[in-house]
Order: sequence, then C-alpha cells, then structure tokens
Amino acid sequence: MLIREATPADWPAIWPFLREIVAAGETYSWDRDTDEDRARALWFKPAPGRTFVAVDEDGTVLGTAESHPNQAGGGAHVANAGFMVDPRHSGRGVARALCAHVLDRARADGYRAMQFNAVVETNDRAVALWESLGFEILATVPEAFHHPHKGYVGLHIMHRGL
Amino acid sequence: MLIREATPADWPAIWPFLREIVAAGETYSWDRDTDEDRARALWFKPAPGRTFVAVDEDGTVLGTAESHPNQAGGGAHVANAGFMVDPRHSGRGVARALCAHVLDRARADGYRAMQFNAVVETNDRAVALWESLGFEILATVPEAFHHPHKGYVGLHIMHRGL
Repeated sequence: MLIREATPADWPAIWPFLREIVAAGETYSWDRDTDEDRARALWFKPAPGRTFVAVDEDGTVLGTAESHPNQAGGGAHVANAGFMVDPRHSGRGVARALCAHVLDRARADGYRAMQFNAVVETNDRAVALWESLGFEILATVPEAFHHPHKGYVGLHIMHRGL
Repeated sequence: MLIREATPADWPAIWPFLREIVAAGETYSWDRDTDEDRARALWFKPAPGRTFVAVDEDGTVLGTAESHPNQAGGGAHVANAGFMVDPRHSGRGVARALCAHVLDRARADGYRAMQFNAVVETNDRAVALWESLGFEILATVPEAFHHPHKGYVGLHIMHRGL
C-alpha cells in the first residue's frame, strides 16, 4: 500500500465509495444526498488543506483522507482530518495507515495538535482505531447525531498532540 | 433595545465593529485580516442560517448574532451561534439579550441543542455569560487558541439543550 497526495485525477475513483459512505449516514455528519460537486469541494479543500489516497500495487484507490486547519486565525495550529475507506477494502489497515500518514504530515506542516469534532460514538471501529493512535475523547456531545438506525447518539470530540 | 432579523442593509453598520473584534484576534478564531466580502459571507450564512441585530430606540445597531446548524446531515439538529457586540455599547446587556433571542428562535426552529465550538477560555465575560444562560463546558481543548497577548490558551466547547 502506498499513500500519496491525491490529484484531481483520483476523484473518479474516490467518489463512488465516498458517496456510498455519505449516503449511508451512519458515520459522517454530511447531508446524505451531498452531490458530486459539493463533495469534491468538501474533500479537496484549498491549501493548506491536503488530500491523500491510499493505493495498492495496481494503483487501485483503497481509501482517502483529507486534513485542514480546524479553525482559522488563532486556531489554525490545530488540524482536523477526515478518512474514507472503500468498504470493499476494509480490514486491511487502510484507515490506520492513512491516519499515521496524516499525523506525520500534519506534524511536519507545523500543526501542534489534531482534533476530530464529530466521531459518531457508535462507530466503534473508528473510535478504537483513533484511541490506538493516541487520540483521547475530550468530550461526548450528547445526542448530537441522528443515526438512521440507532436514533440520537453522541458525537465524540477526540484530540491528540503532535 | 429591539432584536430583529438582520437585512443586507444592516451590514454597513455591522462591519466596522465586527472588523475591529476580528482584527483584535482575542475572541474569534477567524483570520485577523478577514476582508469584507468574506466576513459578510461568514456572518450572513444561507438558510437555515439566520442573522440578527440588536438596535436601540434610534435604530443604532448595538450588536449582532448569527446561528446555523453546527454540522450537516445527522448533526443538523444542533445549532451553533456567534455574537458580536459593538465595544462602544458593551455593558448594556446586548450579548445576553441577543443570546436569549437566538436560543428562543433556535428552539422554535426545531433545534434540540446549541453548541459553541471555540469559546476562548480567557474571554471571561463571555464564558460567565454563557454559563448564566445555561451552557456548560463540555471540554476545554488544550492550547487550541493562540492569543495575541496571552499565548496558547484553551478553547471551551460549550453546550446546552433546548
């Protein structure tokens, strides 16, 4: 598996699984019917935002990540990031590899910490993965996410220094 | 003091003190040199975002507020809000009146809670005011804000049900 910066040419490989994850509405607080133009703009943010892909030896895109400042101005030294792994390639460590890469890159870019604002508390695999990578749950916003099957569940705010 | 929905015609009265507050860089995690077009877009968000002004008996704008969903999709039932009071009219209860109004309106609009993501912990007056209005500090993100005089300080995440 190789992780590299994404280019616009990667988008057609990203959009099918990103759309599927967003449409499921279980893990991302995006509108479930987010259209392609809006999704591309959310995933390919302007600099200093960065977008990455994880590809296998054949060049197949397995997953993607993006990072950007969590706040502007006086808060711009804390990064935020998002991760999407093609469900057809889950269980291969793609998210872990993407996150480790994003953390290294954020540190190199001068960020001092990384914060996730909205980790759905029922997304057990993600929560466990981020904790194993050094994130801690600072707080859980009660009933802040309306899960399509589980109703109102909490959103974890997770954080780690860099 | 009257609180009403803002119109584009209010912007010329808002911009001078909003710019002053943002340029000071002590309470808002916006770029300190945010230009007028960008500021207007941040303060007048599209629906369901709302923008308000507090005006006195002469029609002078004393302060302003805006509210919008804190997240999209499954998180859109939690509101976020921002408040700016003209420093020349501070100490008159403008922020308290604006916040009470915004809370009432958010409740009427069907939001279930309100969350502030980035309350600078050294902004004692704001923290005390939000607490007096029923908000609690869910967490303080350590060193998440670079204050121009005080260095790295925390950002409170504050929340209350509606």
